Formats: sequence, structure tokens, C-alpha cells
Amino acid sequence: MGNLADIKVVKIGGNVIDNEEALQQFVRDFAALPSPKIVVHGGGRLATRMCERLDIPQQMIEGRRKTDAATLDIVTMVYAGLVNKRIVAALQANGCRAIGLSGADADVVRASRRPSQPIDYGFVGDIDADIIRADFIEDLLSADIVPVFCSIMHDGQGTLLNCNADSVASAVAIAVSRIGRTELQLCFEKRGVMRDVNDEGSLIRKITPANYAELRESGAVNSGMIPKIDNAFAALRRGVGAVVIKHSAELCNPSSGTVISQEE
Amino acid sequence: MGNLADIKVVKIGGNVIDNEEALQQFVRDFAALPSPKIVVHGGGRLATRMCERLDIPQQMIEGRRKTDAATLDIVTMVYAGLVNKRIVAALQANGCRAIGLSGADADVVRASRRPSQPIDYGFVGDIDADIIRADFIEDLLSADIVPVFCSIMHDGQGTLLNCNADSVASAVAIAVSRIGRTELQLCFEKRGVMRDVNDEGSLIRKITPANYAELRESGAVNSGMIPKIDNAFAALRRGVGAVVIKHSAELCNPSSGTVISQEE
Repeated sequence: MGNLADIKVVKIGGNVIDNEEALQQFVRDFAALPSPKIVVHGGGRLATRMCERLDIPQQMIEGRRKTDAATLDIVTMVYAGLVNKRIVAALQANGCRAIGLSGADADVVRASRRPSQPIDYGFVGDIDADIIRADFIEDLLSADIVPVFCSIMHDGQGTLLNCNADSVASAVAIAVSRIGRTELQLCFEKRGVMRDVNDEGSLIRKITPANYAELRESGAVNSGMIPKIDNAFAALRRGVGAVVIKHSAELCNPSSGTVISQEE
Repeated sequence: MGNLADIKVVKIGGNVIDNEEALQQFVRDFAALPSPKIVVHGGGRLATRMCERLDIPQQMIEGRRKTDAATLDIVTMVYAGLVNKRIVAALQANGCRAIGLSGADADVVRASRRPSQPIDYGFVGDIDADIIRADFIEDLLSADIVPVFCSIMHDGQGTLLNCNADSVASAVAIAVSRIGRTELQLCFEKRGVMRDVNDEGSLIRKITPANYAELRESGAVNSGMIPKIDNAFAALRRGVGAVVIKHSAELCNPSSGTVISQEE
């Protein structure tokens, strides 16, 4: 364990990025948080819209998008270029010295291309938290520089790979948890995990292994949330101190959202 | 003057980026150069083609492109995203630990939006070498990390600005010349400055203030080269040790190209 104080890894989802007002509020709130801190962002619908405008057909396999070569170029442009630099420039304007990073930059995060069997997702990668260069991230954090990760990684052989932003956030949080106590905050457009997405009062305050099993069985947890929660438990098992799923507008409210915890 | 050995700042032009074979050769040659070293790249025709495909009209003013808001998004995507990350990933594959940077990243280079009078070029910026954060660049070089700059800068107020890549290369070279002796290499698809662009044997080996005046008067120097050479002399006056204009394929040949020198 290193010498850094509590590290916050904050992931923002596509719905925050697509909404200019929500994004600007996030940037102001995030800039106000004490350091050390890290952002991980998804891409939002900009890449999909760009593919549509360029007549690049989008192939969906079991509900997930295939990243062919043309789509990889678009997501690299949109995630690593437009979205990343907009967030970085906006953070600078709020006094937060951010640096945008893909996994290729300083070779900080490598990914492995997902095997083409049983399903070929194209240029999609998976990350092993063990090979993230936490020393480089530590150098940045120690200099009070704030890493802003997009979800484009590389394989070390010259190929860029499109990764899942929740998985990037989780892997980065696991890697930096060896430097200092790390909290992972997954921010989106809901107050947290809800029993009923149409009922603002149905927020689940805490999910532990025991009630998670029950929530899954009863179907109370939306199927889209299951990979997010599974990811959260995996991060906790691998050293992350705390995981919270919350609304991006409640970033500065420590008692908001759904806490994922291994303890009852 | 700091403790770093000879620093090379290598700028590659659009014709190298547009030609996959030339780019791959450049990447291999650059990776083989001794450190410390820095790349600055332009964008090539990819951004123009992307604007055409997206039906974004390109407004030319006196032969130069206006960067309106829609065009700024495209150049940010293409230069800071696609081109920058492709170069970085290719360098990593050649054992060169590169990091892609826009000016907004770590607030390393700020630009000022060019005044809208007499000509409004839109979101175009000019750089003052004095406010480049050479300390951050020095930290990277000292860690044997290779900065790869695109030509997208920021104003510190949240606005990204499109800058001329030759000017970025020149400003970065001036800034790092305070850390160590710096050589600026401007690489493109010609052998150097030619008396006759159609005659490979007409390479001008050396341009000094005396023969430059004569070459301009006689019209022997192509008008497109004049800003490049003016830029080179300005860099020399402001501390850069040497400037060479050369073919990208002759990067590793120290006796190639046209040397720009203040001395006869």
C-alpha cells in the first residue's frame, strides 16, 4: 500500500456525456472533489450517431455491438478524441489539471482481443488489472494531475481495442487500490439501483451478497444492472475499498446512491 | 539549460500520415532514434474527407480553412483521436513508450484564439512558446516517455483550438530548448527545400539569412515553403539549436535534407 490518500475512481456513463448540462454539472462537481481522483468515461450515443451519418452498418450480436474496423476508427475518434478532449478541456477550465489517456498512452493499460469463438465481437478487448501500469498513474496522481481514461485500449502490438467502460473503471480501481484506499463510483442518470425504475423512492441503499441473490431471484434488479453489480463485487474482492452506484448529479453527496458491499 | 542530452523534435506532415506505408516506415525509424525525442503531427486529408462525408461545408478564406464549430469537432476527433492514437499504438508496438497529447492534456500547451479581425478563421489558435509547461515535458522525457503532440490546443477556458502543426512543433522545440540542446526536424514527402520541385537533384543543402533573401527574390523557393522557413529562423532565434527540413524516409540519415542556419 502506497502513500496516497483515498483515491476516487469515478466512471460516467453515456447518458451523462450525451447531456451537455449534466456533463457540465459533473465537471464542476468533479473538479471540486479533493484529489487524488480519476475519471473513466464511456462514449454515449455520439459514436452510434456518427456511424449512422457515415452509413457504417452496425452489427448487433446478442444485444451487443460488433466493433469492425470501420467502427473501431469511429469509436477511437469519438471516445479518445472528441469526448476525451472535451472533458479534459472543461476540467482545466474548472481548475482541475486533467490528462486524457487511452490505454496506448504511456502503455498504461493493455487489453487482449476477445477470442472470436463462440462470438466474434471484432476489435473488442478485455483488460487484466494486473498488467496496468499503476506506477505511471501514481506518478500523475502524486503530481496532482487527474487521469481521464476513455475506453480505447491497445494490445501492445499496434492494434487499438474497444473495451467496456465499466470494466475499464473496475480494472483501474483494482490497480490503484495497491497505491492507496480506493473508492469506485459508477455514475449514471439514476439515483442508484432501484427496485422499480419508475419509482424514485425505490432506491436500494445497500447491496450485499445475501440480498443480491434475493434481488436477482425476485427479478427486482433490472437485467442491465446485473453486469454492473457483478463487476462491483469482483472489484471489492480484488482490493477496491468501496463501490457506489449513483446519480452523476449527486457526486458530492457522500450518502447518495447504492453501496455495494461484501459485508452485511 | 537542464540535464537532458540532445532533444529531437520531429514533425511529420499530412502526406506522411495519409500514406500508410510511409507512416509505418516513419514509426519504425523514429522508434530507432535515441531518446529524448518528441513527435508533432499534422492531420492530413482524413479530416477533410470526413467533413466531405458528413456534408460539413468547408469554407476557405485566402487559401486557408476556416474552423467553424462543426469542423472543430471533426479535427478534434481525427487529429487528437484517430491519428494520434494510431501513431501512439504503432510506436508502442515498436518498443517506443509514447504518450499522445493535445494541448489540453495536463494543460501542457495553451493557445489564444486568433482575433476575428481582419479575418475570422473560427476556432483557430496561436501558441506562445513561453507558456508551454516544459517542466511536464521534461518529466516525461526523463522517464523515457515520448510525447506525441497533435495540433489541437486549448485556451484554458474550456475551448479547444485548431493550431498549425508546424507552429506547434516550433513552439514545443523553443520550449524544450531551455531543458537541453534541441534539434527540430520538419519531415515531409520531399527531400528538403528544392530549387525545382520536379528535379530531385536541386536540393538546397543549406539556407542562411543571406541566400534565403536571394532565393525568395529569385522565386526559387516555393511560396508554400516560405512560412516553414520563416518559422525555422524564428525557432533558431529563440533558442533551438538546429532546424532541418527533410524527407520522412531519411529520418535516420543525419546528412539528409535542407539545414536552416543563422550562420553562413
